[in-house]
Amino acid sequence: MDIFSKCSSFTLARECRERGVYPYFHALESRQDTVVTMEGAGRIMLGSNNYLGLTIHPEVVSAAVEALGRLGTGCSGSRFLNGTLGLHLELERELAAFLRREGCVTFSTGFQANLGIISALVGRGDYVICDRENHASIYDGCRLSQGKMLRYRHSDMESLEEKLRSVPQGAGILIVTDGVFSMGGDIARLPEICALAEKYGARVMVDDAHGLGVIGEGGRGTASHFGLEDRVDVIMGTFSKSLASLGGYMAASEEVCEYVRHNSRPFIFSASIPPAACAAALAALRQLEAHPELPQRLMALADYAREGFTLRGVPVKPSAAPIIPICTQSADNTLLKAKQLYERGVYVNPVLPPAVSPGDCLLRTSYMATHTEELLDEAMDIIAEVFANG
Amino acid sequence: MDIFSKCSSFTLARECRERGVYPYFHALESRQDTVVTMEGAGRIMLGSNNYLGLTIHPEVVSAAVEALGRLGTGCSGSRFLNGTLGLHLELERELAAFLRREGCVTFSTGFQANLGIISALVGRGDYVICDRENHASIYDGCRLSQGKMLRYRHSDMESLEEKLRSVPQGAGILIVTDGVFSMGGDIARLPEICALAEKYGARVMVDDAHGLGVIGEGGRGTASHFGLEDRVDVIMGTFSKSLASLGGYMAASEEVCEYVRHNSRPFIFSASIPPAACAAALAALRQLEAHPELPQRLMALADYAREGFTLRGVPVKPSAAPIIPICTQSADNTLLKAKQLYERGVYVNPVLPPAVSPGDCLLRTSYMATHTEELLDEAMDIIAEVFANG
Repeated sequence: MDIFSKCSSFTLARECRERGVYPYFHALESRQDTVVTMEGAGRIMLGSNNYLGLTIHPEVVSAAVEALGRLGTGCSGSRFLNGTLGLHLELERELAAFLRREGCVTFSTGFQANLGIISALVGRGDYVICDRENHASIYDGCRLSQGKMLRYRHSDMESLEEKLRSVPQGAGILIVTDGVFSMGGDIARLPEICALAEKYGARVMVDDAHGLGVIGEGGRGTASHFGLEDRVDVIMGTFSKSLASLGGYMAASEEVCEYVRHNSRPFIFSASIPPAACAAALAALRQLEAHPELPQRLMALADYAREGFTLRGVPVKPSAAPIIPICTQSADNTLLKAKQLYERGVYVNPVLPPAVSPGDCLLRTSYMATHTEELLDEAMDIIAEVFANG
Repeated sequence: MDIFSKCSSFTLARECRERGVYPYFHALESRQDTVVTMEGAGRIMLGSNNYLGLTIHPEVVSAAVEALGRLGTGCSGSRFLNGTLGLHLELERELAAFLRREGCVTFSTGFQANLGIISALVGRGDYVICDRENHASIYDGCRLSQGKMLRYRHSDMESLEEKLRSVPQGAGILIVTDGVFSMGGDIARLPEICALAEKYGARVMVDDAHGLGVIGEGGRGTASHFGLEDRVDVIMGTFSKSLASLGGYMAASEEVCEYVRHNSRPFIFSASIPPAACAAALAALRQLEAHPELPQRLMALADYAREGFTLRGVPVKPSAAPIIPICTQSADNTLLKAKQLYERGVYVNPVLPPAVSPGDCLLRTSYMATHTEELLDEAMDIIAEVFANG
């Protein structure tokens, strides 16, 4: 059989287009801002991970422009070999200090950070235990590793302990959890996870892609939120959300970082972060450090939106972060609502199977520190009208 | 056992540092150019993949600067959802046209392109057949896929046919090969590979990371080099080499691209290429299109270097691309020679196990269209002196 026969029999996208409800790849002609120009019209952006709105901050942009002039458009090689800039080391030092860790390693993307950390640390005979709702890149990191993956029910500590008990005596264990879950906007039960890790001799890794710049002291993320900075062994995060760029990182002890730097294929065999992206992430980090009011403002706006949705009778799921899921049940309803909102000038992200179970589909809304209450009111009024019509 | 015990027992890097031969992570304070400032001193760069020297081209830099001002520093989301720019679609269209393909899909890195293409196309029950010297990201893509991987001896067509014969009747087959091999600088035997693919009903994918901008008509890569553009099904490449940026792509039929866009986790679950990096790649592509003399100049310089090494009695391996491996046998000798060259102002990349077999270690040298004969003479004189001293 032709290995491409799966391509010719793939008709889902075409069917959605024919029904006029295709929700993907809407192209922006403008900057990623609170209001964007998408396919020729203005849309209120409730679907970005640009939590602090820093992608258009003048100092972040000018740092990137300066780096382009001084260092060019690319590094043409891996961090390991010819692709390390002084600028990469500066970003790693400042991020380690911000997160109060000894060491930091940057990766070309957040996706590759999870691949690179987990595949390096979880060796043959080791176990990696994951929350079922962890990000796809964590699963793919587990798959790339030589170890065995176990999954526990989402934020279910009995299920986690059951998995821990099932690990053969003497095997190394890494528990990996999202800090803030990307679809539900809920926060991992880190105190219990750390206590169980201690009981069973496991290490803990937190993916703070949606935690950095969002929760914790000055936006230091989930471990800081719970006062558990000493108890989390590896913090992973990304530059493509609060830090307004592209790339990923791990922060950990220098010994663990040193091991990953020399044993991680997705780190070693990939070109490094380009100068402009590196400078943008560093400038955004400095904005975050200088303006601890940014994550506070973000959380206040998310609370405002949660309250506003409830007052307007929109069926939202409880959440704690600037991610608010709206329940839409079926895939058909989700596509229809996303389309109606899009046409009325509100962009939200549809979440469909396999990302959720059929019947639990969502519209994921997310917030930025640069949104205003007025803009959110306008968006919520439109959402409420669309949902009032069934 | 503590899963981190592997980290505390990892001593190789420390040992190399103590012996003064540690060859990795030398930081640049300057642009990636023919001569760089690395750790405070000028070094002739013979270890970059910046084949066309475009990372510092004024038009490439200014395109990136323009994109930063117009579109900001990041896209804050996946291509699939809120992270598609008109600029991404423009790059995909122009690259597809340049490579004479219907469709093109861009990925956040070249590494993720291989992961994302192979894991999407090779499903359960399918076979993927690899040249043993393929890039690490191809292997990791095979590992992420649900299919079965077979490997054939490097560029050995009997070995390839043996693997093809061993595939159960009716299974889908994808043959994946580097176009230009990254370490050896030799070119895949594509005419025979395509003939065997036809005989056994397999599809062919070429990783042209080191082929684009280097070989073929106007730098169109390995398929073009052999006049086999109609016979290669998927071309993969990267923006971090000739195209002066970061990112990766696939070029194929629109049907295959459409399938990958909707079924590739490393594509769907990763933030898109930032505006500056996207604009740089597009501007570099336009430079390549407008200046077919660039790859010609690059190849002429590589021929000049091959001849120069031979005249000077430096033990180089035969190669056909702007990659010339110098044989150093043992790891110790490789580290020593790399250090001596570095101290005398020439940067080359050491290639050690597991990238090569012990005893087959190399110093990999690579060339840029912006090198001059004078600069190469200077570097080759230093290399010859270091090798003459045993």
